[in-house]
Amino acid sequence: MKPKIQDVARVAGVSATTVSRVLNDRGYISEETKRKVYQAMKEINYVPNDLARSLYKNRTHLIGVIVPSTSNPFYGELVSHIEGICNRKGYKVLLCNSLNEADKEKKYWEMLLRNQVDGVIVVTYNRGLVNDNHLLPAIAIDHYLGKNIHVISSNNYQGGEIATNELIQSGCKKIIHINGPSQLKTPANDRRYAYEAVLRERGRDPIVYETPSVAFLEENINVIEQLFREHPDVDGIFASDDLLALKIIQYAEGLGYHIPNDLKVIGYDGTELIRSISPQLTTIIQPVLLIAESAVKVLEQQIENKEFSISETVLPIELWKGSTTQ
Amino acid sequence: MKPKIQDVARVAGVSATTVSRVLNDRGYISEETKRKVYQAMKEINYVPNDLARSLYKNRTHLIGVIVPSTSNPFYGELVSHIEGICNRKGYKVLLCNSLNEADKEKKYWEMLLRNQVDGVIVVTYNRGLVNDNHLLPAIAIDHYLGKNIHVISSNNYQGGEIATNELIQSGCKKIIHINGPSQLKTPANDRRYAYEAVLRERGRDPIVYETPSVAFLEENINVIEQLFREHPDVDGIFASDDLLALKIIQYAEGLGYHIPNDLKVIGYDGTELIRSISPQLTTIIQPVLLIAESAVKVLEQQIENKEFSISETVLPIELWKGSTTQ
Repeated sequence: MKPKIQDVARVAGVSATTVSRVLNDRGYISEETKRKVYQAMKEINYVPNDLARSLYKNRTHLIGVIVPSTSNPFYGELVSHIEGICNRKGYKVLLCNSLNEADKEKKYWEMLLRNQVDGVIVVTYNRGLVNDNHLLPAIAIDHYLGKNIHVISSNNYQGGEIATNELIQSGCKKIIHINGPSQLKTPANDRRYAYEAVLRERGRDPIVYETPSVAFLEENINVIEQLFREHPDVDGIFASDDLLALKIIQYAEGLGYHIPNDLKVIGYDGTELIRSISPQLTTIIQPVLLIAESAVKVLEQQIENKEFSISETVLPIELWKGSTTQ
Repeated sequence: MKPKIQDVARVAGVSATTVSRVLNDRGYISEETKRKVYQAMKEINYVPNDLARSLYKNRTHLIGVIVPSTSNPFYGELVSHIEGICNRKGYKVLLCNSLNEADKEKKYWEMLLRNQVDGVIVVTYNRGLVNDNHLLPAIAIDHYLGKNIHVISSNNYQGGEIATNELIQSGCKKIIHINGPSQLKTPANDRRYAYEAVLRERGRDPIVYETPSVAFLEENINVIEQLFREHPDVDGIFASDDLLALKIIQYAEGLGYHIPNDLKVIGYDGTELIRSISPQLTTIIQPVLLIAESAVKVLEQQIENKEFSISETVLPIELWKGSTTQ
């Protein structure tokens, strides 16, 4: 049997109300009494029930985090940072992997509400998840979720400009952009708009391919195949994420292209993992730690002040120059 | 103001007790009354409080998952699978990234107890986290945590044998093994024991290097450097994880070794991510999905039956043959 508050009271020689007041830090309790209660808790191995206290205090210190999947290193690193920061601030993370399915996201959102989370951080793709008059503190990372949701993103437009210019400066004549489904409402689309604008400024025609899926690689291979079939003379590719870029390099090398002599490739995201195991890949680094810090900080302000800022935080990006664009 | 159970009762024209009985599925309630209650909940946007029900039912459906970090793709994939399976079974996952720090693991464990989790899945390195007479259902993945904890692992000994034999069959004369800190009590040490046994059977001397850290790459570079300085004639390396193997290949190529002509390398883990972006790496595939399924299944049995099996589940591994051992 788990020890109860009454057992602590009996061992400490005080009333159950006194134990409860010590645990919840309510009213005046002498240091001597506190010491006796803590001593008794230790003696009988009593664990306070945070759940019961959450209900009493109307604050659970639970943060829901919805991501497509921690299998993807970008989300794996983001979640690791978010959880670490939350932990230091006394929050716990309820993790939800939505696999980009609208239906799952909706169910996760409802589950988080039922579990009285203090707030939610959402990295997800489907609009309409949240209705406009929701009352729960929530932050969206890199996606527009609803008009009352604060968005944290990195400077995707600048990232797209830098990536495209890097290929131009490396001497590429035919530069193609490949990205995720464009019907998704995400600031990441700015990467594509920047690519298109930079090319048009130079009187070139943008060519864009769209993958059917954002997170999973195997579904994207047909699009890569189509790209090389339709444009065998491509000499520069700007991929909207690093996994896609690495897949393209693999495929192109299989066709006999030499990287970077025949074809230059630049990716996007620049996670610690990819920079460590594939440092040769030129890419745009998103500030994953800074994104996590900003998300938790703004969410905490909403939780503390019950104030919903309706704005956007845009964080700086950085070029990682590898040998795939030399 | 959040709608309360009393508001639902008022709108449905029934008592608060009746609403509570509908929500908790207790006692006889007519279909007509249920319909009215659900209709009222929808009308006023009432969200049932799972937390309050958890306390009442003494089951939270919360599962704590402690891993070193979801930044590492092995743990990122494992956590994604565990959470997905838990979700389908109606469990929620409280995620904890311990960063391999004993102190953090202890604090997470206590936090999970205070939050009344139904059970814990632990992938962590420090013995002594759990005392032997604990009462909480718990599963350890790939690590020995305490004498009452069921361990799920894949067949590390066989994996070590297959990896070492793969290098021998590829013609390697001087095969070195490099792995994580051996003082950790983990079935993964079997990979090393198998390597040593296979070499000794052939009258060869095993040479083993140990990295200071299991999860983070940068700390391991000095050991790689030492290995090549002390054994420039090495022609086969069996690394205990894929990230280490890829780092070794990078380092060796920097020194002018041609892979696989001068040096053959085999890794371990074979996550979906690494097989997708570095399919050339020969490796031993751990069955990540199967590990996740087994862990949740055994944990659920413990939760349902309050029965603590003290045994070990050993799952099959598989060779992924790339070009780094050709």
